[in-house]
Amino acid sequence: NHYAVAVIAGDGIGPEVMAEGLALLQAAAEIHGGLAFETSSFPWNCRYYREHGRMMPEDGLTTLRQFDVILLGAIGDPGVPDHISVWELILPIRRAFQQYVNLRPIKLLRGLESPLRYKGHADLDFVVVRENTEGEYSNMGGRLHAGTPYELAVQNNVFTRYGVERIVRYAYRLAKETGKRRLTAATKSNGINHSMPFWDEIVKEVSGEYPEIETRLTHIDALSAYFVSRPETFDVVVASNLFGDILTDLGAAIVGGLGLAPSGNINPEKDYPSMFEPIHGSAPDIAGTGIANPIATIWSVSMMLDHLGERELGRLVLDSIEDVLTERRVRTPDIGGTATTREMGEAIREQLYRR
Amino acid sequence: NHYAVAVIAGDGIGPEVMAEGLALLQAAAEIHGGLAFETSSFPWNCRYYREHGRMMPEDGLTTLRQFDVILLGAIGDPGVPDHISVWELILPIRRAFQQYVNLRPIKLLRGLESPLRYKGHADLDFVVVRENTEGEYSNMGGRLHAGTPYELAVQNNVFTRYGVERIVRYAYRLAKETGKRRLTAATKSNGINHSMPFWDEIVKEVSGEYPEIETRLTHIDALSAYFVSRPETFDVVVASNLFGDILTDLGAAIVGGLGLAPSGNINPEKDYPSMFEPIHGSAPDIAGTGIANPIATIWSVSMMLDHLGERELGRLVLDSIEDVLTERRVRTPDIGGTATTREMGEAIREQLYRR
Ligand SMILES: CC(C)[C@H](C(=O)O)[C@@H](O)C(=O)O
Ligand SMILES: CC(C)[C@H](C(=O)O)[C@@H](O)C(=O)O
Repeated sequence: NHYAVAVIAGDGIGPEVMAEGLALLQAAAEIHGGLAFETSSFPWNCRYYREHGRMMPEDGLTTLRQFDVILLGAIGDPGVPDHISVWELILPIRRAFQQYVNLRPIKLLRGLESPLRYKGHADLDFVVVRENTEGEYSNMGGRLHAGTPYELAVQNNVFTRYGVERIVRYAYRLAKETGKRRLTAATKSNGINHSMPFWDEIVKEVSGEYPEIETRLTHIDALSAYFVSRPETFDVVVASNLFGDILTDLGAAIVGGLGLAPSGNINPEKDYPSMFEPIHGSAPDIAGTGIANPIATIWSVSMMLDHLGERELGRLVLDSIEDVLTERRVRTPDIGGTATTREMGEAIREQLYRR
Repeated sequence: NHYAVAVIAGDGIGPEVMAEGLALLQAAAEIHGGLAFETSSFPWNCRYYREHGRMMPEDGLTTLRQFDVILLGAIGDPGVPDHISVWELILPIRRAFQQYVNLRPIKLLRGLESPLRYKGHADLDFVVVRENTEGEYSNMGGRLHAGTPYELAVQNNVFTRYGVERIVRYAYRLAKETGKRRLTAATKSNGINHSMPFWDEIVKEVSGEYPEIETRLTHIDALSAYFVSRPETFDVVVASNLFGDILTDLGAAIVGGLGLAPSGNINPEKDYPSMFEPIHGSAPDIAGTGIANPIATIWSVSMMLDHLGERELGRLVLDSIEDVLTERRVRTPDIGGTATTREMGEAIREQLYRR
């Protein structure tokens, strides 16, 4: 099999962690005789924005459309407002390519310790399915009476039946296919009294099609607390765009930090390319120092392999990450070691060859 | 001093924890010769709703208006939709009485252990100032094309300059008065691109008036992760209605759970009565079993005493809670013991007399 991979390394630590992700990908291809990945890199980032006045060329999406998958490093630079870098690159890709599933595993890897005192590997292994195209990130709204004491800003949360049904169905299907018993839907229908009761209704409707799966609707405030106090009660968590965003950073924290957390922006129908990216940002504070943890990116590559149907290889990559973590010899500073980004990446590649 | 206190015990465990809160209040009055609290109880809860078709009488707010303060237990019953019980009782009170500050201390009490492996008392002591009248809980929005595949729901987040300025100013004032160095404002201006950039602008404006305080704007996703990974970096956190709601349940989890977490719905100008309540819900699953932890309610009474200007007595109540926790003899099940609600309340009262 031959795959075309678009690579957007981005800003800050993006290029540093991406280098390790790509090296890993080529190592994986070497191991598995019949695989080839042709990568094309696009320099679309905040530097590009400062030079061209936009985050990507006008035909950027058309270009990306031709690839099988996209790998993204990290986007963002102190000199460019976030709502520009994000709304002109990441969010348009997620939307144009109907990557309506943002899949984010919350799993304590072998060899790591949770910051939660009484929680171990058996307690920390679930997945968050985040809606990725609508909801709270609507881009709809504006301001009135600017510059006066009466100024106000309105932002619309927009939830469509189409959008909610497809993400909720995906979550149930995933639970069923992976043999999971429990589905938890994040809500806040007590405080947010139009959009969230609508979300709840659709969850209840779809739940009727999956009687074998136990459904719980939990308010986002309590749910965030439960991530800390009872993470063992989750199998599949489905959440709106904003709630999923919050829960997955929190989820990353309880399994060892943002340096480890991968994600897939997935178009399940495969009508369009899906995009894989670490959930961390561009971390300008450590950019250039070579100490960023590349595991989140390498794990994202593993998820990309899964998505492409190369599940065995995807599994092997994740196993190699866990082997290296269990050996404890090579670790970046964020997980208690002194290794560089490159050393961490190399160790995982070597382990992949060894396996 | 003589204070009139309106008491709404509410549903589920509400009346059980409130009984201990009120007993404590009377004990405090006995100790401090010059104080008297006259309490009046109002049976406004979900049972009342089932009997009268509304959560409180038409003139409920007018009645409450005459009191110095309000004590609330918990509201909510599986038989009544949350958005009714909440939108017809708690939220109208918060709004009508301009209780625009929801003050929520996140503090690991003496005698307790944090579920965070490497965090102790010095790391866990800050306060969240939550906006309490507007934002994401707007009650504005609706549905279109109901019953068709094109159905959609819109909910408006409404942020006013008036509303944001007053909460941000309160937070800075609090930081200054309590000698704190750092103020963290929760945002999500990268994803939510109208209301949150407006919020950021106002934070930056007001920060200019407090050059001695270090201001940070942190996205809510990262901020939630930091509550777990670096809680020691917070002094005062200011957040919108929804973000503050999420952060304070999470905050409760990292300092021992919802059974301990108090709150004040405060009208700083004292034009209207303020309201004090535990942040936990009515917990129908344990209602009637007598094992609910009354500490959240008793601590809320302590905050009420602070608000009334009886700071020494408020401090004494909190000290008594901490003494009992440190002694470790009497604890409710949620914090690892076998004591009942009443035993826990009694132990704190006895300690208060002893001090
Ligand atoms: C009952 C609910 C609407 C409420 C809120 O979200 O404000 C509660 O969670 C709280 O934190 O006081
Ligand atoms: C950059 C930002 C808009 C983005 C999001 O909130 O979706 C990021 O936090 C993420 O989780 O991928």
